[in-house]
Amino acid sequence: MPDTSICAPRKARVFSQIEKQALYDVIENRRDVRNEFLPDPVEPDTLRRILKAAHAAPSVGLSKPWNFILIRDNAQRAKMKAAFRKANVEAVAMFPEAKRSAYSALKLEGIEKAPLNICVTCDRARGGEVVLGRTHNRDMDLYSTVCAVQNLWLAARAEGVGVGWVSIFNDADLRTILGLPGHVAIVAYLCVGYVDQLFDKPELAARGWASESELNASVMEETWDEQLGTRCY
Amino acid sequence: MPDTSICAPRKARVFSQIEKQALYDVIENRRDVRNEFLPDPVEPDTLRRILKAAHAAPSVGLSKPWNFILIRDNAQRAKMKAAFRKANVEAVAMFPEAKRSAYSALKLEGIEKAPLNICVTCDRARGGEVVLGRTHNRDMDLYSTVCAVQNLWLAARAEGVGVGWVSIFNDADLRTILGLPGHVAIVAYLCVGYVDQLFDKPELAARGWASESELNASVMEETWDEQLGTRCY
Repeated sequence: MPDTSICAPRKARVFSQIEKQALYDVIENRRDVRNEFLPDPVEPDTLRRILKAAHAAPSVGLSKPWNFILIRDNAQRAKMKAAFRKANVEAVAMFPEAKRSAYSALKLEGIEKAPLNICVTCDRARGGEVVLGRTHNRDMDLYSTVCAVQNLWLAARAEGVGVGWVSIFNDADLRTILGLPGHVAIVAYLCVGYVDQLFDKPELAARGWASESELNASVMEETWDEQLGTRCY
Repeated sequence: MPDTSICAPRKARVFSQIEKQALYDVIENRRDVRNEFLPDPVEPDTLRRILKAAHAAPSVGLSKPWNFILIRDNAQRAKMKAAFRKANVEAVAMFPEAKRSAYSALKLEGIEKAPLNICVTCDRARGGEVVLGRTHNRDMDLYSTVCAVQNLWLAARAEGVGVGWVSIFNDADLRTILGLPGHVAIVAYLCVGYVDQLFDKPELAARGWASESELNASVMEETWDEQLGTRCY
């Protein structure tokens, strides 16, 4: 008979109350950081643990389609900042006039303040033409990459490292700066650095830009609930 | 002068070595579960904590665009299972002939074995026409929703609850079963239930379907590294 022992599940790790609470505290205390970055470089061992956590994310067909491009060079970050500035001028103009000055007053990135930027990309060709689990949803590889981003973000928070996700860019500008080939998609551009102060709720709520919806408004039973869905606005 | 005190960052929560290790252990021990689900219903308090963790995910412009549709009804799950079966027949046929029998031998879902299924959707209209941070990437709301999925997955693991993400469906079939309006996208279909046994590495690796790449192959400096990118295949 073949040895199937390596292929059997085993007793699962059980987490104590203190350990569970640690996870919930990391999740609740995670922030999208724009301005609180300290200038100190992120320690190599710390960065390695954070990236290892990202690399342990679920991925479709175990394809691990992500790459992490570490950007520390001042000239590279200056180019990114210019790309952000250009896009943000376009962004302001998209808002109704009444909201423009409030929008412009918000700090939305820490590209140059954070000592480290990480561009998280997704190689759309990795794993070949047919990937298990990607057969009916071609974007599962992008979603896997976002799972890696969220793991990275939580690990960073536990390590005292803040992360801010900047999405106000024209894709083409970043592709040029980073020299990305056509089959590689940009999923996230992250500003990363130590923090010792953070907002105690999401900054957009603290600054009155938006308010947080309640969990109850997001939970439905068995099928879509049109009434509840409409109440979310 | 206006009172800006509510709008200032405060001393950030610091995590101990034990707390950090708890997070890393949750991340490393998280599995995509297909077959280890126990039949016991997930306790309401436990489920609430898991959903609360999901709801604390980062979201573009604080839009929290997700909904969680909880599916426990046997008839609903039977319809889902039929939709999976149909799609999986199509999936098998997409693989090269040499891989088809290995693919068919894999269990890829726990729709009926797990007592709870959760469909995580993204309301593409939530937050209005112009959402802060979504101006230059229209898919940021989908990515926010994936962050919620990953928070849910980690919280579940800490609670002794397994999660398996099923993506082998035709979108239209699920939309019909769940009665989704056109502006709502399906991001993830999750099978959820208590587990006491799990694989000690990703099941696709344990079963020899795929092998895990090393972190080093995913890390680049300053720009895309074509050589490293090519080595990932």
